[in-house]
Amino acid sequence: MNSILPLANSQQWLSLANCDDPRLKSELVIIRSNLRDARQAGVNVPGQGEAGSLEHNQHQKNSRLIEQAGLLWQIEADREAAQFGIQLLQKYAEGYQAMPFHQQKNTNPPGKLFHQLLNEHMWLLYASLGYGYLKSSLSIEQQQQIEQGLFQPMLTLFCETYAHDFDRIHNHGLWAVAAVGICGIVLELPHYVDCAIYGLAGDSRQGGYLAQIDRLFSPSGYYLEGPYYQRFAIRPLYLFAEALHQHRPALEIYQYAQQRIARTTEALLQTAYPDGRFPALNDASRSMNTEDEGVLIATQLYRLRYGEHALIERCYRQQQRCWPYPAAPLSDTVFAGCYESVELTEGEQGDAGAQGILRALAANGEVTQVMMAYGQHGMGHGHFDTLGITLYAQGREVLREYGFARWVNVESKFGGRYLPENQSYARQTVAHNTVTVDQCSQNQANAALADRVHGRRHFFIATKEVEQGATLTAMSAFANQHYPGVDMQRTVLLLTLAEHSAPLLIDLYRLQALQPHQYDYSLHYQGQIVATSLDYQRESCWSPLGETSGYQHLLLTAQSAVTQPFSITWLQGAHFTSWHSAASGGEVLFTYTGGDDPQFNLRNEPGLILRQHAAGDHLFASVFESHGYFDEASEQCYDACGKVQQLRVVGHNLEGSVLEMTLEQQRWQLMISNQPNLTAVTENQLEFNGNSFRWQGFIAIRRIA
Amino acid sequence: MNSILPLANSQQWLSLANCDDPRLKSELVIIRSNLRDARQAGVNVPGQGEAGSLEHNQHQKNSRLIEQAGLLWQIEADREAAQFGIQLLQKYAEGYQAMPFHQQKNTNPPGKLFHQLLNEHMWLLYASLGYGYLKSSLSIEQQQQIEQGLFQPMLTLFCETYAHDFDRIHNHGLWAVAAVGICGIVLELPHYVDCAIYGLAGDSRQGGYLAQIDRLFSPSGYYLEGPYYQRFAIRPLYLFAEALHQHRPALEIYQYAQQRIARTTEALLQTAYPDGRFPALNDASRSMNTEDEGVLIATQLYRLRYGEHALIERCYRQQQRCWPYPAAPLSDTVFAGCYESVELTEGEQGDAGAQGILRALAANGEVTQVMMAYGQHGMGHGHFDTLGITLYAQGREVLREYGFARWVNVESKFGGRYLPENQSYARQTVAHNTVTVDQCSQNQANAALADRVHGRRHFFIATKEVEQGATLTAMSAFANQHYPGVDMQRTVLLLTLAEHSAPLLIDLYRLQALQPHQYDYSLHYQGQIVATSLDYQRESCWSPLGETSGYQHLLLTAQSAVTQPFSITWLQGAHFTSWHSAASGGEVLFTYTGGDDPQFNLRNEPGLILRQHAAGDHLFASVFESHGYFDEASEQCYDACGKVQQLRVVGHNLEGSVLEMTLEQQRWQLMISNQPNLTAVTENQLEFNGNSFRWQGFIAIRRIA
Repeated sequence: MNSILPLANSQQWLSLANCDDPRLKSELVIIRSNLRDARQAGVNVPGQGEAGSLEHNQHQKNSRLIEQAGLLWQIEADREAAQFGIQLLQKYAEGYQAMPFHQQKNTNPPGKLFHQLLNEHMWLLYASLGYGYLKSSLSIEQQQQIEQGLFQPMLTLFCETYAHDFDRIHNHGLWAVAAVGICGIVLELPHYVDCAIYGLAGDSRQGGYLAQIDRLFSPSGYYLEGPYYQRFAIRPLYLFAEALHQHRPALEIYQYAQQRIARTTEALLQTAYPDGRFPALNDASRSMNTEDEGVLIATQLYRLRYGEHALIERCYRQQQRCWPYPAAPLSDTVFAGCYESVELTEGEQGDAGAQGILRALAANGEVTQVMMAYGQHGMGHGHFDTLGITLYAQGREVLREYGFARWVNVESKFGGRYLPENQSYARQTVAHNTVTVDQCSQNQANAALADRVHGRRHFFIATKEVEQGATLTAMSAFANQHYPGVDMQRTVLLLTLAEHSAPLLIDLYRLQALQPHQYDYSLHYQGQIVATSLDYQRESCWSPLGETSGYQHLLLTAQSAVTQPFSITWLQGAHFTSWHSAASGGEVLFTYTGGDDPQFNLRNEPGLILRQHAAGDHLFASVFESHGYFDEASEQCYDACGKVQQLRVVGHNLEGSVLEMTLEQQRWQLMISNQPNLTAVTENQLEFNGNSFRWQGFIAIRRIA
Repeated sequence: MNSILPLANSQQWLSLANCDDPRLKSELVIIRSNLRDARQAGVNVPGQGEAGSLEHNQHQKNSRLIEQAGLLWQIEADREAAQFGIQLLQKYAEGYQAMPFHQQKNTNPPGKLFHQLLNEHMWLLYASLGYGYLKSSLSIEQQQQIEQGLFQPMLTLFCETYAHDFDRIHNHGLWAVAAVGICGIVLELPHYVDCAIYGLAGDSRQGGYLAQIDRLFSPSGYYLEGPYYQRFAIRPLYLFAEALHQHRPALEIYQYAQQRIARTTEALLQTAYPDGRFPALNDASRSMNTEDEGVLIATQLYRLRYGEHALIERCYRQQQRCWPYPAAPLSDTVFAGCYESVELTEGEQGDAGAQGILRALAANGEVTQVMMAYGQHGMGHGHFDTLGITLYAQGREVLREYGFARWVNVESKFGGRYLPENQSYARQTVAHNTVTVDQCSQNQANAALADRVHGRRHFFIATKEVEQGATLTAMSAFANQHYPGVDMQRTVLLLTLAEHSAPLLIDLYRLQALQPHQYDYSLHYQGQIVATSLDYQRESCWSPLGETSGYQHLLLTAQSAVTQPFSITWLQGAHFTSWHSAASGGEVLFTYTGGDDPQFNLRNEPGLILRQHAAGDHLFASVFESHGYFDEASEQCYDACGKVQQLRVVGHNLEGSVLEMTLEQQRWQLMISNQPNLTAVTENQLEFNGNSFRWQGFIAIRRIA
């Protein structure tokens, strides 16, 4: 009867009973206690409820109880647990067919147990796993009752009633094919397994697991919806891969598409901040991290099927929990660092832009990480934030993503669904650290338009030695299809100087247009402003900055004319950040989210906008400096003021940009090429104000004093 | 030469070298590394600078280096460390007399090394300790140079030039007497020791250490400026006590005033939240905690001089760090709980009101703690917040103190001094969880007026069994001298019900006046509003609520008329709080701090005001319910809605208040006596709406359905 076990075989499961791994032991303690509590409470199969409701939570819990009952049966022959899992399955099998559908409230088709089909797919996947583990303990009659009452109707529902949804290339689609495929394996119905692998049309292109792999994950492994959805998609990706590895070995699924499953695991972990959190790209929470079940499964199966990899090992060894499954043993190899700059290309062919990640170390060993989005839009969960950046330094996100406007599973917040402000604020360009042109979002905030375009790499330099013991890592990208008549280029560098305790982020945002436009260079931070060279006026009343494109949510709290390069310093937690801008015109707007928010759905957070009007070639040049330390509890503080004194633009045009940066005791000159189709050996020569500047390749940095 | 060692004797110091305590070992590692780093950097005695400046920090550091060099000399005969400490002392001795004074910028007299004399006292204390440890290694000539160049001028400065400041009964005064006293011991100048103990007048009343003990700490041990200043005052209190214990044993200082030093240690730790933080009563940071050096010293010396006490042991065992000093051994005794309700009386005779602390346990073992201030004002650092409460539940402060408007030692924030908004907002009544009458602060926000009055206990019940397995702890207090013509009484209870996972806070704020007044019942929370039964309107522009008394800093973000009992639920971190109000009139104002804040000195935080106009007997009745759980990272949520359905006022008058509270499956009746001079056996009888209510004593709770 082993053949119907969906994942590991009986002996492998049994081996877990005597395993010494403390993480596995503690998972088994949790599972046993879950089952014991549930048995005491008795079988509880409720009716329907909103996301986050008692009913919703109970259904979700029940599918995991079924799976866990099966695990305990396989691992330690726990009869009472098995019996409880079977009772749950029987109870669902009695009632499922007669249950009505939920009322539809958003674009996702409703299920019977849950408000959206996605949850029903997830339910099927876990119930199928559990049923697979328990099946051998059931009589044929019992099997028939469960399969005919529950699993067959679900398969019909997903592959026929909702056939149009089954082949959707989407993270929901991955759950659908994994659930149906694993259920097909357990029920020994190869037709459903084939549908799940090759799609309903059987062409491996319009739908099915293989098409999902080909089309969802770029060759670099990046998933265009971003890490929040990638860690969610990677769970069914791996569970079904492992089932196919066991039951369709000829498919060699782990080798498929040049080991795309390995690549996507690596890409996901590459995006993570040093503390294990994922940057909130696109619709995403700000707290999702590498303890997520998908990541636990991915690191474990990666190690088992692909072997050791520094990035995976580091994550696996950092994780506090584990997925209860046979694991590859830990080697004695020491895996250092893994803090490198990396470009994750996008698109099915890897030619649709990228997510660029620069990393450098501060003197105290903390990682500074800058991400820039110059890839695709991200479909229905995409944010209109091309060329947007985030900065992580000294253990915190300093230039911040807002993330989504949503409280997942909080019943009293619209049943845990996406909130209206997700569309009206969180996805808008001005909610990101990028430039908004003429107070409108990129591609008119139209996802269909945005999905058709993407950013384009100019250059990406993982690491480069500069004179005087300095090093830099840098990237530059174009986005010319996001605003009609406006070409954009953003270049960001991390410059590590021997004399400076933390890497400096240098940011050059260049815009080029024939017509005059209004450019809003916006930043989102957290903390307290402690100093600024601006002569600002605070507003006595805080009013919205505009009426659309997210501006209706931004309250103006202060403003300042800009006449010369300025700096603003804020304190976030224990560290200071200074923004030094080279601007010599326009105005700075100090903002706060909270306008037009009838349901208190927005978090109230501060922001800054540098607003300038320009035609022709325009450049926003900034340096961000992390400095100092403040501990309120022990009342210690040092270096509250920073060391960068000024950033000055010498000149910029179609060919290049030249800047000068003055520190306490040094002056540096920075030259960047703006011409596409350049190579690393192109000779550049520019003249500004009668001075000539020559350099080779994309970028040059020189100490001049 | 032992006689000049200010604290422990040579053998006791030597014993530390072989001590096994890991905390002590790690402190010694830190001290050795401090000294090594400093030796490498070389002797650095700078000029003058602002608080938080390099110069300020260096002077501070130098006094600690002198002390630590002495410690290493005593503990492990470290010659290099000793030599470095001596060089520092010599350098200061060369320059001190010629140094000018700082420019005076606030009410504190300026020093030479520091902007305020307080820091100069602290410097003297630590330099004296260090000199005492090092003295035996110096020639008589060296000793004379240091004493005549540095210590003698300092003693003259403090006891003669600034004689008017030396006898001030104040936490600064404690530092002054401890520094001068310890310096006097080390220099073998008994005159200065006597001045320090008995005051310049020698009467032990106008000034001096004994007067400070008598007059600063009430018999309960509470320090009227609050825990933030108490943990600061307790450091010199103990250091000088220990020096006197060694050098003036006949004084029996640890026994003085019925062991007042023990009492004040216990009182300080009684106020702490379970996580070790101190509630931010009066001027205080929100992060000061039991790792503060004063608390480290206090717990260690308490154990050595008074023996074991559950509260002290719990704190001592929780502390991560320790004070490097001979310690009393750890016993095997198990110290449970210590989570009790306690009343800390105020005033030299203990008859000037109190700080009341109620505690109860939630089902998950978390402590719920409510504090109410019904004592004295707190002198120059006092807030106008009599009858104000704070609530701590599920690991967070739920009804919050704002704390002070100050970033200690942050140079760019007004040199780390108190900011103007400390006076204009943080100290005002409306910044607290209490009632503001007619939009004016208590006692016209006049500290001199406020210092003359205090609250008065009505009753305090540490714990009481109620029927049906419920328990309660409760307190009630009057404040009749804080608003002319308005008498106030606040009664708060923690009610623990078997069926309810966390204690309920029931809050009855009663006001009585002949004339009509406007009453603003205000609450300060943090987090996100997730639900409310109010039909509110949000403001499109956020404008200040008023022009004075702190209202100028509160922006109105939404408002709602109140026509029937309502509830508001917010999510803070992982837990929900619901405020259920029995009000059936008036309005609720939703506020945000940030108005009239020219320097960005305020933190931007939300608040709620229930505003009602009334004459005669008026009652604000509320229940606060902690419920549910939300973990964004794992996307789990339950019980977002809570179980309290309604709170209703049956009636209230001069004699008593009667309420009814409806839960999901229970109804409770609550009767509270409002008459002063009641006893626990007084029979009460009241009639409201034709119904009669009878109970004995201060309070009664009955389940009625």
